Amino acid sequence: MKYRELAKILKVEIDRGKYRDTGKLPTEPELMEQFGATRYCVRNAIALLAELGDVYPVQGSGMFVRENRREGCLNINGTRGMTSEFPGHSVSSKLIKLEQREAGADSARLKCAADAKVYSVSRLRLLDDEPFAIEYALYLKEFVPYLSEEIASGSIYAYIREDLGLSTGFADKLIYARELDYGRADLLGLSAGDPALVVEDDAYLASGRMFNAGTVYYHYKKATFFNFADLK
Amino acid sequence: MKYRELAKILKVEIDRGKYRDTGKLPTEPELMEQFGATRYCVRNAIALLAELGDVYPVQGSGMFVRENRREGCLNINGTRGMTSEFPGHSVSSKLIKLEQREAGADSARLKCAADAKVYSVSRLRLLDDEPFAIEYALYLKEFVPYLSEEIASGSIYAYIREDLGLSTGFADKLIYARELDYGRADLLGLSAGDPALVVEDDAYLASGRMFNAGTVYYHYKKATFFNFADLK
Repeated sequence: MKYRELAKILKVEIDRGKYRDTGKLPTEPELMEQFGATRYCVRNAIALLAELGDVYPVQGSGMFVRENRREGCLNINGTRGMTSEFPGHSVSSKLIKLEQREAGADSARLKCAADAKVYSVSRLRLLDDEPFAIEYALYLKEFVPYLSEEIASGSIYAYIREDLGLSTGFADKLIYARELDYGRADLLGLSAGDPALVVEDDAYLASGRMFNAGTVYYHYKKATFFNFADLK
Repeated sequence: MKYRELAKILKVEIDRGKYRDTGKLPTEPELMEQFGATRYCVRNAIALLAELGDVYPVQGSGMFVRENRREGCLNINGTRGMTSEFPGHSVSSKLIKLEQREAGADSARLKCAADAKVYSVSRLRLLDDEPFAIEYALYLKEFVPYLSEEIASGSIYAYIREDLGLSTGFADKLIYARELDYGRADLLGLSAGDPALVVEDDAYLASGRMFNAGTVYYHYKKATFFNFADLK
């Protein structure tokens, strides 16, 4: 059994309240026995759950199960695109514009030459068919050699990972609030001057090369991010 | 040498551009040699820097030094209060209200009995003497038995850790944008209806017990959060 599978199973059990009585996960040997899994698998599954904030080690007392529900919230760590953030909901995109051009003024942000070719995509992201966010994204053609309207209407990250086989590494995110201008407010069904929650993403491949820069304006009444912060 | 010390030294060197030529940290053996440090110390220091987004492992190529500057931004992971987030700036607080009361309607959020005693603190946080945020915080008296106006005008987290000797563990944060009402806008020097970046914090001790709940309204023109997200 792969540790990601085991982590998924344990997460479902946590969400169903299976460990609510004790407030703790079973011990490593108990989990190894119960799932016929190796110590390595159990340890990695637990480490993954801890990273996502689902369990927390309490010294001398085992893995404490977190009761927090952040349903309907977006995880600010390891966002993999909305599609995988909202299971059970319909996530779709209305393509506003897809073009190929030179990086130009965006070359500083993308850390590339000014004449490097990029795909520029703007989309209205819909959650259960309602406007949820406006996304502006740039992809370096060096890494994403082909993008079509069809691809850009679906999950671009799934395409990049599954079809292009790129290994994504990490992203730097900036999060702030701004006033919406008339055009964006209109797309989101809001009024000019209403707040927007804005997230800027600089996304890197596992090789350390930046391949994507994005800026997303979220509907302030619909989007809440959550984060699990270590205070140790 | 403690690994936290070594991490701090390396961070200063990174910020000064020492590794800009190679884009990489020296190898483990080189760092052990250079600082007379154990392998354990070097490894933990690097792990800490990786966690904070300052370095990133690139397979077969070593620890890649991150060039990103997020000066003047607040780290959404491991926030330890503004005082330690803005080195070189003056951080102060204007106490709005400090009272002792029963948890009452806040007991659900604080996961305590309705008659549990809490300190309720509201403060205007100032950065370089300008309004930066309005903070509402509740502390369970069970864990924070004493708070004075003097303490509440300084760094409450430093007091909790250094004077009370509590071990903080983790926090769940919610991040969203809202419109400011008249009262809060006035305190921040903004207009009613302007956006606010709001962060709700549920903070836990290392023992897994929640001890503090806070809600902070940040000045939208001054506060930007950053986060380092793992996309693997």
